[in-house]
Amino acid sequence: MTPYEQLTERFRRIGLIGDTLGVLEWDTATMLPQGSAPVRGEQTATLSVLRHELLTHGDVGALLDAAGDGNGDHDAWTAANLREMRGAYARATAVPPDLVEAEARAVSACEMTWRTARAQDDFELLRPFLEEVLRLTRERGQAVGAALGLDPYDALLDEFEPGGRARRIDALFDDLAGFLPDFVAAALERQAARPAPVAPKGPFPLDRQRALGVRLMEVIGFDFTRGRLDVSAHPFCGGAAGDVRITTRYDEADFLSALMGVLHETGHAMYELGLPERWRHQPVGVARGMGVHESQSMIVELQVCRGREFMAFAAPLMRDAFDGRGPVWEAENLYRLATVVAPGFIRVDADEATYPAHVILRYRLERALVAGDLRLADLPGAWAEGMQDLLGLTPPDDRLGCLQDIHWPGGLWGYFPTYVLGAMTAAQLFDAATRADPGLRPAIARGDFLPLMRWLRANVHEKGSLLSSEELVTQATGRPLDPAVFEAHLKARYLD
Amino acid sequence: MTPYEQLTERFRRIGLIGDTLGVLEWDTATMLPQGSAPVRGEQTATLSVLRHELLTHGDVGALLDAAGDGNGDHDAWTAANLREMRGAYARATAVPPDLVEAEARAVSACEMTWRTARAQDDFELLRPFLEEVLRLTRERGQAVGAALGLDPYDALLDEFEPGGRARRIDALFDDLAGFLPDFVAAALERQAARPAPVAPKGPFPLDRQRALGVRLMEVIGFDFTRGRLDVSAHPFCGGAAGDVRITTRYDEADFLSALMGVLHETGHAMYELGLPERWRHQPVGVARGMGVHESQSMIVELQVCRGREFMAFAAPLMRDAFDGRGPVWEAENLYRLATVVAPGFIRVDADEATYPAHVILRYRLERALVAGDLRLADLPGAWAEGMQDLLGLTPPDDRLGCLQDIHWPGGLWGYFPTYVLGAMTAAQLFDAATRADPGLRPAIARGDFLPLMRWLRANVHEKGSLLSSEELVTQATGRPLDPAVFEAHLKARYLD
Repeated sequence: MTPYEQLTERFRRIGLIGDTLGVLEWDTATMLPQGSAPVRGEQTATLSVLRHELLTHGDVGALLDAAGDGNGDHDAWTAANLREMRGAYARATAVPPDLVEAEARAVSACEMTWRTARAQDDFELLRPFLEEVLRLTRERGQAVGAALGLDPYDALLDEFEPGGRARRIDALFDDLAGFLPDFVAAALERQAARPAPVAPKGPFPLDRQRALGVRLMEVIGFDFTRGRLDVSAHPFCGGAAGDVRITTRYDEADFLSALMGVLHETGHAMYELGLPERWRHQPVGVARGMGVHESQSMIVELQVCRGREFMAFAAPLMRDAFDGRGPVWEAENLYRLATVVAPGFIRVDADEATYPAHVILRYRLERALVAGDLRLADLPGAWAEGMQDLLGLTPPDDRLGCLQDIHWPGGLWGYFPTYVLGAMTAAQLFDAATRADPGLRPAIARGDFLPLMRWLRANVHEKGSLLSSEELVTQATGRPLDPAVFEAHLKARYLD
Repeated sequence: MTPYEQLTERFRRIGLIGDTLGVLEWDTATMLPQGSAPVRGEQTATLSVLRHELLTHGDVGALLDAAGDGNGDHDAWTAANLREMRGAYARATAVPPDLVEAEARAVSACEMTWRTARAQDDFELLRPFLEEVLRLTRERGQAVGAALGLDPYDALLDEFEPGGRARRIDALFDDLAGFLPDFVAAALERQAARPAPVAPKGPFPLDRQRALGVRLMEVIGFDFTRGRLDVSAHPFCGGAAGDVRITTRYDEADFLSALMGVLHETGHAMYELGLPERWRHQPVGVARGMGVHESQSMIVELQVCRGREFMAFAAPLMRDAFDGRGPVWEAENLYRLATVVAPGFIRVDADEATYPAHVILRYRLERALVAGDLRLADLPGAWAEGMQDLLGLTPPDDRLGCLQDIHWPGGLWGYFPTYVLGAMTAAQLFDAATRADPGLRPAIARGDFLPLMRWLRANVHEKGSLLSSEELVTQATGRPLDPAVFEAHLKARYLD
């Protein structure tokens, strides 16, 4: 076997262990008896360590050296696969094992404390634990950054958004931050001038909600012979390559929020199921970062399913699913209901129009914290100030402020910006798709997702990790990520 | 770390990979989307190979040499753990990798052909495939036998029944084979002299069957915070240490068979959940072979739940579960129904009294086939002859004869005898338990399983793999396995 062939064998193993971990994580969230959590923890720790050892073993470095630089010797996919292998190896070997362990311990303690601190609105309780997580995160950023030639924050970001750079995000987000306050005010004014949409009255039986979700997943093209829909406390898309499992959480009083969650996760799932099978279990065959992943869920949920065309198709199905009667079940009312703008304190409850402000705030704060330009003691104040600037709201306490998200206590620094990169990418991809195929929107109004999925498959899903996110967007839409496209979408939808 | 400590670390990993495989196998049988079977196959193959590599790696042999022989240096558990490690290592290294692979391929082809051959009643179609499996099985038996100092058949048997020897089983089964024909005739005569029991009329809704099963599992002591009950085509007890998952298959027309299946698997599960936690993931901490395992399911299902005391307790619960009325729901009728004797051709449908004959037949035939004393071409004839001798029945075709079981096509040679070893062990353990605690049977009549489970835990479950099966039975009951005890049980129940 050539060095490259040996590497593909090794990374295939690594990928399959990752898939196994994906199935176990799904099981933990959906099926695991509560008393079995400790043994599950031992199983996943063992597999994670095995995977890490397979990746960092000395022979991998030697094989990578021997495999050549991929220029000329290899086709583009093989060269990209080698590039991704090198990145994974460099990242995994950059962080000393004792730092990995210290972080795992610090994160575990911090997450636990965070639950109490949030419940009791006590930031000072959390602070020393978060300080330790931040310190170790910074250390990791420095170690990985040294290996990859990146700033510490870029090194952290790069894990979730390969190729993503803070300098570029600064520019995108500054543009958006300049646009949002006036836009939100205008959208609210526009909304106030119309009669408020009326929510259908429940209860909405869970089995009917599930059946409706399944029906619409099938409309989108989800293949139930290679995936599942189940229930978990926190909805997600997981499982393994070729076995993609999404979850939701039903509310008897409100079918629309669980349904939109199902459609969101279905967007993620279509991406996973559309990845190139020829490169399955290879680094180049996996999804291209969190920003692109989020764009796929947001195209389905935000661009399409909260849009007028889809609602025209889906409203009768919703009405029939719950034996509904009367004008509340008309498409226009349901569309208005799905696009209400309501500035608030909590990110996960935010609507499409105000959501970016929440993320920009967090991005700016975590940049400053990692760089040492902001002290944790000053975080609550900086948070309140940022909320006032961006959304005109001042949180009454830290529960509704800087204590609301688990990301930082959980060690996820550099993750937040991918949410808005995803929203911007979604708008730009959908814009390009509808330009490329004028029949795409009318098809959606008939419940035909084939034109959309055909375009996404060719331009996104089948690309795997061949391109950087920015290259992918540029190839698919003719230009790099452009805030003007996202802003135009928001104006078209909310200022119509 | 001492060599022994290094070994426990290694075997802990091996055990945890095995647990992961157990969860994946459960998922495959209960949750896996049908189109995802190929990727699941790749996941389990990768984990199996990793486990095999961890077990057969050269350093394991060196560590075992360095760890000493366990005499004097170690306490009994540690010495037994080393003994089990040595056995696992010797067995795993005895079989050359190309034989493992050839067997996997032959078994896969043979199982597939078996499905067709059975459906079409065509033994000749199966024969060349089975010939290949048998040839490779014999090779494996010789290789393992050479490593462990055993005859080929004993080497195969030893995998399922550690310490089991054909010479000993010959003696036990010859005794039983001498007893059975007259006993079955007498039981049938006795049965014919009484009015036949009447089966309650369905349909029995599946959710009520499930609720009744859960209720009775709780009565037995199954801990639902560390296990589950689900549905699969072929009922089993699986999952992982501390996360034990049983399955059943419901029939709307017949609640008793699924219920008895649930109780059977609950017996297996109580064993798994009762294994010594201190030795979890170590070779000495796992269940002691298939014979002992089967004894635990048979104590619960056959000794207890098909018995008069339990039926007195459970009959009202069964009646209430299905809103039943009338004399068919009386305990005596349900007891009679659960203990009907009806000689037939199919092993898996056989009752307690005729089941051993099916197993003895298969044991004798597989012994002769492995030894080369019987040619596969002569198997159908030998099968028919044996059925006539043991049960007075001649199968009309091979579907009802030698094509009925998947064991041989599946490479499971040396497995069959453990079913009857389990039945004999169950009778002898239950006999000893009721002698040790006269309150045990009256407790069961009140739905109190604590006395039984306390005894089983102390005498079986908590022993893990400390003792050989024969030692375990001897310590728990005061004598080695004795067919007279099993025969006395059968007479007491069926000739009363």
